[in-house]
Amino acid sequence: MNSAIKMQALACRDAALELARLSSSAKAELLVAMADALEQDAPAILQANRLDMEAAAGKGVATAMLDRLMLDPSRLAAIASALREVAALPDPVGQVTRRETRPNGIAIERVRVPLGVIAMIYEARPNVTADAAALCIKAGNAVILRGGSEAIHSNTAIAAALQRALREAGLPEAALTLVTDLRRETMLELLQLTDIVDLAIPRGGEGLIRFVAEHARVPVIKHYKGVCHFFVDASADLELALRLLVDGKVARPSACNSLETLLVHERIAADFLPLAAREMAARKVELRGDPRSRALAGITIEATEADYAAEFLDLILAVRVVDSLDQALEHIRQYGSDHTEVIATSDAANADKFVHSLRSAVVMVNASSRFSDGGELGLGAEIGISTTRLHAYGPMGLEALTVERFVVRGSGQTRNLP
Amino acid sequence: MNSAIKMQALACRDAALELARLSSSAKAELLVAMADALEQDAPAILQANRLDMEAAAGKGVATAMLDRLMLDPSRLAAIASALREVAALPDPVGQVTRRETRPNGIAIERVRVPLGVIAMIYEARPNVTADAAALCIKAGNAVILRGGSEAIHSNTAIAAALQRALREAGLPEAALTLVTDLRRETMLELLQLTDIVDLAIPRGGEGLIRFVAEHARVPVIKHYKGVCHFFVDASADLELALRLLVDGKVARPSACNSLETLLVHERIAADFLPLAAREMAARKVELRGDPRSRALAGITIEATEADYAAEFLDLILAVRVVDSLDQALEHIRQYGSDHTEVIATSDAANADKFVHSLRSAVVMVNASSRFSDGGELGLGAEIGISTTRLHAYGPMGLEALTVERFVVRGSGQTRNLP
Repeated sequence: MNSAIKMQALACRDAALELARLSSSAKAELLVAMADALEQDAPAILQANRLDMEAAAGKGVATAMLDRLMLDPSRLAAIASALREVAALPDPVGQVTRRETRPNGIAIERVRVPLGVIAMIYEARPNVTADAAALCIKAGNAVILRGGSEAIHSNTAIAAALQRALREAGLPEAALTLVTDLRRETMLELLQLTDIVDLAIPRGGEGLIRFVAEHARVPVIKHYKGVCHFFVDASADLELALRLLVDGKVARPSACNSLETLLVHERIAADFLPLAAREMAARKVELRGDPRSRALAGITIEATEADYAAEFLDLILAVRVVDSLDQALEHIRQYGSDHTEVIATSDAANADKFVHSLRSAVVMVNASSRFSDGGELGLGAEIGISTTRLHAYGPMGLEALTVERFVVRGSGQTRNLP
Repeated sequence: MNSAIKMQALACRDAALELARLSSSAKAELLVAMADALEQDAPAILQANRLDMEAAAGKGVATAMLDRLMLDPSRLAAIASALREVAALPDPVGQVTRRETRPNGIAIERVRVPLGVIAMIYEARPNVTADAAALCIKAGNAVILRGGSEAIHSNTAIAAALQRALREAGLPEAALTLVTDLRRETMLELLQLTDIVDLAIPRGGEGLIRFVAEHARVPVIKHYKGVCHFFVDASADLELALRLLVDGKVARPSACNSLETLLVHERIAADFLPLAAREMAARKVELRGDPRSRALAGITIEATEADYAAEFLDLILAVRVVDSLDQALEHIRQYGSDHTEVIATSDAANADKFVHSLRSAVVMVNASSRFSDGGELGLGAEIGISTTRLHAYGPMGLEALTVERFVVRGSGQTRNLP
């Protein structure tokens, strides 16, 4: 006797076979129809969102979370517009990434195919319901959406609109399955369905992500946190370094590609740190430093071990003066999260050493950590960021929602027969 | 207080950083030196293997297993020769798979980097100790080898030779870590080390693979079994189909790319099945059929549901007459293992439909299932086969032991600043 969630997942898997066979143009039309459906349902979606907002306010939820939860006409229009952008992206499915004819005459193609069924596990942002569904479907996958309870009314209304577009295209609604049974044991069961769910992608706070990673038996791609470092080499251009620091720290400090730690080479520290401290103070960034940086920049708060390991998600920056590039690399290896690291340098050898000595997913030379983003890196869109060194590493676009398989065409070739 | 296995794994992770930075020529030289070391140590390795063989014989181990365990001078020479072949393969590490300069001037490269630490979990074949280590190291990874207890003396002797080559190259021995504590709880602990082990690859029987997949918290790439199908379409060339059948079934039926089930279109069944039955009988292959195939080919044994789901690993073939290509596809979807499927057909539309309707890792048109092999598919070598639709799907070569990351070079570009 299958449970309700398993029945839902099985229906989603059947739907995945149909999605996998859709033409690129059919998928593009479907996503445009989904955008239209969201706009048509705007009143219902906004009304549902008001229910969620009232319930959250009644529970005394924090302002930041309320902001993530809130939809208004312009946010909804942005979601619909994002769907149309995804519709216009190139379709990764069917792409032939390699062709080879072997000496025996068999012709081998590596061809991108969808992963199958993707389970998205997320928190309060209702836009993920539409964004993630669009990317999964564009890459030919069916999707199981399990959002947070705070957004249940919004998610239900959004999913209803998207499912109408599926139905009107003659496709099974189960291709987009919203989990409305939000009990934790139901999520746990979903995460055990190894023969049905091909990939789980958790998006949200570190707590949620660790929960999913620790309990899932299906494959999980995730990143826990982005402890991004900025190393100012002795040869750095001061003005350039200052701009990268401000850009990397100030706007949206809660983004995972924001800087958390500034490492400064001792030979440039006396010049750079006072400038940096002034800029940071002007932008209300709190600094926490090691003894040398505190002395040079008048930083009052001492940085602890915990500060160097922290993703502050706030206007706080840990600072340390290092003796050398090697010490900077050691620091990053010890405290980093394999997300994104930046060096400002005018020395090509040091730039190369920085790049090759670190195993982080994204390494930047003289460019802002804020470019660590699927759109900025040319992926067209982003379903998430992986700090797992498997399948995808760094920002994940549509290709990361596919896998390459082998198609072989011959004329009767055999291996063991004469 | 870290356990012994965790200490070993941590040392292996440190060694991985050194391996990741090795040049292609240094890795090639290392692998040649490893081959030399194996040949130098041949007497010790063969002596160790005799201890394993005696112990296994004393325990009454099956002949097939004894054969897998056995080393002799020619097998050892073949292992050394395989290492030299891996040494000569192109190095995937550092390959730039894509380059793009964005409108803002940042230059983005996707670059292949090693996965890090790979744990190989395997059974009685001592050659895996050398083969798997060579492939992992060629792709810049450190490796933890956990072989079966039957081969412990052989594996220890082989690992000692390979580690001597590491030492003589000035590299840490921990880059190749052999687990000699073979208690099950120690393997379980190894499979929980999510911050240390980047990937586990189990190789062996379905029992071992299920055990690893079910207990690992680290990512696992595996295939449980290869239930490979051969569909003879109504338009198939009879002679071609017969050759593909014999090649796919007879030699080494225990290989995962051997055929397990023959599906025949009803319109060609009366012509093909008697020929097929005669060929199979001549080669001592036992047939198990559905009522229609039994009637047409004089098959005495009835095929059960279990037969259609089985990987026989033996000279046994399940047979079924189907009404149509669609029914063949349905059968494969129901009983298949996503490994390899073959169609014999002269109809291009049916070939395309077969390819696009199945989600198996390898799909062949008019070519033998035996080409489902890393070497035959042009990968140079094979570390395993994946039927997991993530990271790698189908035979895995050196590239599957790497992941692509992002390297970005700019001249001070920022995202939010004017």
